[in-house]
Amino acid sequence: MANRLFKSNNSRSRWPFHKVLIANRGEIAVRIIRTCRVLGLATVAVYSTTDAKALHVKLADEAVCIGPGSAEKSYLNISALIGAALVTGADAVHPGFGFLSESVAFSRACQDNDLTFIGPSPETIALLGDKEAARLTMRRAGLPLVKGSQEPLHDLATALAQAEEVGYPVMLKAAAGGGGKGMRIIRNAEEMEAKFAVAQDEARASFNDDQMYLEQYLAHPRHIEVQVIGDQYGNALALGERDCTIQARHQKVIEEAPAAVLPAPVREAMLAQSEQAAAQLKYEGLGTIEFLYNEDGSYYFMEMNTRIQVEHPITELTTRVDLVESQFLVAAGAQLKAERPASVGYAIECRVNALTPGKITALHLPGGPGVRVDTALYQGYTVPSNYDGMIAKLIVYGERRQRALQQMQAVIDETVIDGIKTNLDLLIEILQAPAFQRLTTTVNWLDDQMNPNQKEEQDDED
Amino acid sequence: MANRLFKSNNSRSRWPFHKVLIANRGEIAVRIIRTCRVLGLATVAVYSTTDAKALHVKLADEAVCIGPGSAEKSYLNISALIGAALVTGADAVHPGFGFLSESVAFSRACQDNDLTFIGPSPETIALLGDKEAARLTMRRAGLPLVKGSQEPLHDLATALAQAEEVGYPVMLKAAAGGGGKGMRIIRNAEEMEAKFAVAQDEARASFNDDQMYLEQYLAHPRHIEVQVIGDQYGNALALGERDCTIQARHQKVIEEAPAAVLPAPVREAMLAQSEQAAAQLKYEGLGTIEFLYNEDGSYYFMEMNTRIQVEHPITELTTRVDLVESQFLVAAGAQLKAERPASVGYAIECRVNALTPGKITALHLPGGPGVRVDTALYQGYTVPSNYDGMIAKLIVYGERRQRALQQMQAVIDETVIDGIKTNLDLLIEILQAPAFQRLTTTVNWLDDQMNPNQKEEQDDED
Repeated sequence: MANRLFKSNNSRSRWPFHKVLIANRGEIAVRIIRTCRVLGLATVAVYSTTDAKALHVKLADEAVCIGPGSAEKSYLNISALIGAALVTGADAVHPGFGFLSESVAFSRACQDNDLTFIGPSPETIALLGDKEAARLTMRRAGLPLVKGSQEPLHDLATALAQAEEVGYPVMLKAAAGGGGKGMRIIRNAEEMEAKFAVAQDEARASFNDDQMYLEQYLAHPRHIEVQVIGDQYGNALALGERDCTIQARHQKVIEEAPAAVLPAPVREAMLAQSEQAAAQLKYEGLGTIEFLYNEDGSYYFMEMNTRIQVEHPITELTTRVDLVESQFLVAAGAQLKAERPASVGYAIECRVNALTPGKITALHLPGGPGVRVDTALYQGYTVPSNYDGMIAKLIVYGERRQRALQQMQAVIDETVIDGIKTNLDLLIEILQAPAFQRLTTTVNWLDDQMNPNQKEEQDDED
Repeated sequence: MANRLFKSNNSRSRWPFHKVLIANRGEIAVRIIRTCRVLGLATVAVYSTTDAKALHVKLADEAVCIGPGSAEKSYLNISALIGAALVTGADAVHPGFGFLSESVAFSRACQDNDLTFIGPSPETIALLGDKEAARLTMRRAGLPLVKGSQEPLHDLATALAQAEEVGYPVMLKAAAGGGGKGMRIIRNAEEMEAKFAVAQDEARASFNDDQMYLEQYLAHPRHIEVQVIGDQYGNALALGERDCTIQARHQKVIEEAPAAVLPAPVREAMLAQSEQAAAQLKYEGLGTIEFLYNEDGSYYFMEMNTRIQVEHPITELTTRVDLVESQFLVAAGAQLKAERPASVGYAIECRVNALTPGKITALHLPGGPGVRVDTALYQGYTVPSNYDGMIAKLIVYGERRQRALQQMQAVIDETVIDGIKTNLDLLIEILQAPAFQRLTTTVNWLDDQMNPNQKEEQDDED
């Protein structure tokens, strides 16, 4: 058992676990079950009463009902999940993404019950789940952070001095705040003089605290993330990067691999630093280090996700590695090779979202060379309203970005999902937008496109 | 427009044809339509009255009924096809495989009507369609042929002398014959002395002609074929080989790429010779050179197919080239690069055959990383009895053969095709057979397995 990421070790030809409970639903549960089947691992699906007829339930070797439709009472119910694992004799748990995949309590409950949790240790999840601790840790590990003020700002003079040090433009924020209250984009010293007091008043009024904070303002950031994997021996590899700039209200909509905007030296630095950071953390398992990327080639650590990502298939297509298999291999003690795998070609994923619940009356999914569809849909299936609306991932591979884009348009054109409303038309609009094609979008682009009036108001406020 | 096989030529950014009539049905018609969509080529489907609800009809931009269910009156009806192309304004014709794909008359009719035929010239098709002419041509082009007698054999003495020259064992055949009459496997001079007269008598009785012929007998041949492509400028490339040894009554059932049995120097020689032969023929388009491969490493030209093959997806997975796109590029005058593309990883295809016609009442097709399904099935579709029973191709990609085999078993296990009988169980049996796993099968293996009694009878006769 090995793939190209790992040293082959013929002495270890059996898995240390044999039955995997998949603590998730939908396409990612199906995705994980499929790799388990290939690897000869038995599978236990869990489901809420709403999901009794879901595809993951049909595909698994066994299935256990863990509660009613509400996620809190089923997919987020740790004791029900642990109980399902124990009663079926499962000895490993794959959390997928979302739900309890980054829950310290859940990974610890697995540990306490001798269930191999497919993911990093509870300590690592806790560390990286705390945004400030994660930033400090990653700064120490050598990742660049957005520059910010080193101390709370109480007055204009300190604000001017700190802004000079950080460099304009800066974002002025209420230290205690959130929700945009007290926030101002400040482009130069004159603007700081004009706006500091007003912002501080707003902060005091909103949070009963007038301490301010400022950080470097990225006007046109893209979201770029690096897929990393670490083994149990302190080795780590970067498996290429993804560009996930197309987002609607912080939800990714379209992802691409590699990130075509990156100059080669920037990519190399980003991958090497990510690899080094993961190694320094002794990170075990699959993880994603997210960056904001600036048009000048600078980039800044945002956060690290300690689980498999929705968009992992585009990395699977460009590296030809099964990432779920790789997660199991790490958990089984396999050792990473020293060489980073080459990324070949170009892959794009579009997330298909259900905009309404309902029964799928007709379904035709695309196929052919370079096409993959990850979904739990089937004709006759009823999409429930209880859960995330992402119902399918259309994934294409082409030699170059232009070919992959053409293929994606053909793939969406071919797709038929009748009975519910979906975002397929929006996906086509994005693919045809010149800004998307020319890679001049930013993380705010799609929201601005969808709510042009709101954008103008914001601009006016500034 | 280019892919990694071709030099990019930015000056030629438009296709010389714009609307493609696909003179075929089923999964290959769907396959061709998909690439046309990506390339921006309009599509015309043709269909018999039996196929009015077929998937290829639904997916094409236009569709024309060309006759009743009988293939002779529809998919083999040249004037109906040409008429459909002219009436829809199609300017290119893709013949797929089977039906008229190797018809000299059809390719000439296309030529006469100014329709670009996606395939080689009528002259090339004619040359390679004539088995004896093809053998002579390929011998001249440097491909090894099975050694045989140079002149008709009339008596035992000549037979003994020729057999000595060819080397035992030899197959003795009626020169005029077929159907096994007069055929004997001869392992040494004693056997020749014992059997020549009997065989000659049988030949005379069956064909009123007692001339005999003998050729080298391959006891355990495998079927290995090389995918080649040639452009309009005399350049040719070999795109790797495929092992298609698993056959039932001369129909391939499972195909693999690359051919794991080949020692590296043998593979290199086979590819280089195939490339050279295609270049020498000034072969234009996609073609397949089929060999019998002997366990001692020797191999012998059998025939060349002048069209895309059923099993082309496994080459697409190992070379990451869209072969249908490549056909269009050759027809559009694109120029091949000099370097053969590397073959990476291991791909397997299983042909799913309908054993009975009928309506598909439930359909679940596998998916996930490394899985491709080429099919024209959909839930509610009725598989007709009029045509070839091949209804789906399950195709997997893995790093190594063992992983691909595991993946294929998981893929077949997951597949649900209700409402008709299929060969899915047989495919699993083959995949689990030790001979298949150890690559010790021959082209006769599956027939022997399926009809063990018949094999014993044959053995007794010998």
